[in-house]
Amino acid sequence: MKIRAEVRLKPGHFDPEGDVTAKSLRELGFPVDAVKVGKVYVLDVKVNSKEEALRLTEEMCRKLLANPVKDDYTIEVLNT
Amino acid sequence: MKIRAEVRLKPGHFDPEGDVTAKSLRELGFPVDAVKVGKVYVLDVKVNSKEEALRLTEEMCRKLLANPVKDDYTIEVLNT
Repeated sequence: MKIRAEVRLKPGHFDPEGDVTAKSLRELGFPVDAVKVGKVYVLDVKVNSKEEALRLTEEMCRKLLANPVKDDYTIEVLNT
Repeated sequence: MKIRAEVRLKPGHFDPEGDVTAKSLRELGFPVDAVKVGKVYVLDVKVNSKEEALRLTEEMCRKLLANPVKDDYTIEVLNT
């Protein structure tokens, strides 16, 4: 089953990678005020139900993929 | 205007970060076959129309955010 987990900084957290990206885009002439950078994980998980996949992926986010102090995450099932 | 650009490896390209993430998840006991990692950029762009925002973001992906050799990207307008 393919699951998509998106990990993004919580609002208000400092995002140096986003700031550098915004600066580079402005130097190229793009009218960009700000950029926030996040990560997407597309996971191929061996489970039998959507519920189990979502539960396990939530646990993966808490234990490895996201930083509980500064990240938010969203999870969705792509296909079964 | 907030625009979301998602940059992911084209199918078939080697993804060392994804492979390491999959290995770590398996070591934690998760039944994961494979992981692909991508990036999400949420861009605050100063433009007057959706069309202009999409056109500029497409150009940003080609010029800076994505590697044309190995990345695919998708763009969507989040709000105006």
